[in-house]
Amino acid sequence: LNKKEVVEKILKDSLCVAKNKQGVYFAPANIALCKYWGKRDLELNLPQTSSLSVSLGHLGAKTTIEELTDSKETMDEIWINGKREKPNTPFSKNLKNFLDLFRLTKTCVYRVKTAINIPIGAGLASSAAGFAAVVGALNDLYAWQLAPAELSILGRLGSGSASRSFWSGFVEWQMGIREDGMDSKGHVLTEQWPALRVGMLILNTAPKPVSSRVAMERTVSTSPFYTAWPAKQAVDLRAMKEAIAAQDFNVLGSIAETNALGMHSLMLAAKPPILYSEPSTIESMHRIWQYRDQGLSLYFTQDAGPNLKLLFLEKEAETVKSLFPTLEIIAPFGEK
Amino acid sequence: LNKKEVVEKILKDSLCVAKNKQGVYFAPANIALCKYWGKRDLELNLPQTSSLSVSLGHLGAKTTIEELTDSKETMDEIWINGKREKPNTPFSKNLKNFLDLFRLTKTCVYRVKTAINIPIGAGLASSAAGFAAVVGALNDLYAWQLAPAELSILGRLGSGSASRSFWSGFVEWQMGIREDGMDSKGHVLTEQWPALRVGMLILNTAPKPVSSRVAMERTVSTSPFYTAWPAKQAVDLRAMKEAIAAQDFNVLGSIAETNALGMHSLMLAAKPPILYSEPSTIESMHRIWQYRDQGLSLYFTQDAGPNLKLLFLEKEAETVKSLFPTLEIIAPFGEK
Repeated sequence: LNKKEVVEKILKDSLCVAKNKQGVYFAPANIALCKYWGKRDLELNLPQTSSLSVSLGHLGAKTTIEELTDSKETMDEIWINGKREKPNTPFSKNLKNFLDLFRLTKTCVYRVKTAINIPIGAGLASSAAGFAAVVGALNDLYAWQLAPAELSILGRLGSGSASRSFWSGFVEWQMGIREDGMDSKGHVLTEQWPALRVGMLILNTAPKPVSSRVAMERTVSTSPFYTAWPAKQAVDLRAMKEAIAAQDFNVLGSIAETNALGMHSLMLAAKPPILYSEPSTIESMHRIWQYRDQGLSLYFTQDAGPNLKLLFLEKEAETVKSLFPTLEIIAPFGEK
Repeated sequence: LNKKEVVEKILKDSLCVAKNKQGVYFAPANIALCKYWGKRDLELNLPQTSSLSVSLGHLGAKTTIEELTDSKETMDEIWINGKREKPNTPFSKNLKNFLDLFRLTKTCVYRVKTAINIPIGAGLASSAAGFAAVVGALNDLYAWQLAPAELSILGRLGSGSASRSFWSGFVEWQMGIREDGMDSKGHVLTEQWPALRVGMLILNTAPKPVSSRVAMERTVSTSPFYTAWPAKQAVDLRAMKEAIAAQDFNVLGSIAETNALGMHSLMLAAKPPILYSEPSTIESMHRIWQYRDQGLSLYFTQDAGPNLKLLFLEKEAETVKSLFPTLEIIAPFGEK
């Protein structure tokens, strides 16, 4: 099965029953607490394991999309944060290929305007939010009226982790077992955790030297430890859902931390090795462990980049902020 | 089987046939190129895998040992680099326990003087050289006339990697399969590689926060990836011996590097995680990879500490020294 066939399966009758002048959608960024690392299907972005994230509230991407019917343009017009994106960048090509899945006619071109309030390409889940917002905006433009779980499947075709960006709160991306991936989609957890805080410790916003896609593929094909990852992930995921149900923060934090370190250790053992950490990343890790030894309930997670995301509870927010003054603190479930 | 029984097996008739006034021995430090990480027998220091090292020429430990027969001392007198070691330090206790294996009478106490020209307890193989030198000095003191392979077994009882410190050049510690470990000992490779250079990149000589012993045990019992380590190690070891036979430096270097990173990735995934790297370690790794991208044949290995050992050939020595001015460069097979 290819992407186009999946899109047709989902849209069937809904395609072009109605059309709005433009479509708009906001999708939050999401931070995986149990990571997605490794695909079982490269075309459909089907994962080797399930994963679990928390959405970042107001941080994410808001996309407006319209068809340029009267225009002489033959290429999509892509704007990011008010700046026209050149058509030959890897990002533009990626998005163009993705939009190809949805054009009603061959001559259809889009104007896509995205406002994104997190650094792009630095392991801060910008692409997840970006692809999710595009899918949501298309759903609005064409009045498909798809359910979030269906949008999730479409978003996954753009970027795997986009499948988790159609909800607030905790979202599990259930890996599914079908070849067509129709069961590989997001599922929101009912649990809320208003006291949970995520702190973005931005150490370097330069685009990462190795893309997540390349890093993931290299890990799966060359890391001698990858065979042991799915079993670890299953154990971590189950324990994390229990910790969320029990609101046991120290369990949640420690699983999130060892899960992230497990993912990075897979990469360190790949050939050639992939080391997203920079000196400041390592320094921050040692500091966090030192604070924890001193009694502070503070944990971290790390994605495909040098930045860390700190996990803590509202009652520690002031202390954590004093230790990491540049921290941007997010309340995923809103402020009380 | 316990340590004492192994010692008795080896010494059998040789014990105390003769006695010199004092025993002296120099043992080189050794750097594992294929690491030893994980024990199958904690008492006898029997390893989960074979390993392979290169000895560091003049860097190591020289020990002089004598019995204090006329003394009223009831405790061993331990000197390191001219300084009397307090009897209650972990090191003194370790050495006392080790010496207990060799005392002829219960009242026998030793004066042990060790001159060691590498930093101690910083992942620079000081304990391997130290225990090997003590064993060699006892062999001299009591005129046991044991072969290096027998000394290797005795050294292993003190510190696993000491089993590789009884030879110059490349040494394989063959893991063996026997329960008593009589087949778990060093074996020197015939190959010489005069152009090989090892550079000690000392970033921090403070004693490590987690001992190798603790780190190893925690890795074996909690790292989800440890199950995949023995197979990786077997592949790496075979390929490394081929690279040594073929004098293919880039293969040797890249295997040594991924083998070390594999060991550290096991630790990063342990619970709680063990991260010997410091910011300067990570910075140096990124620099080394950058130089290699630019064409320099330069690799690293890392042991249980933040320091790196660089691997390169004599022809690159000047370039490498200009990039890392503090580097101490060792010619394991002597200068030409």
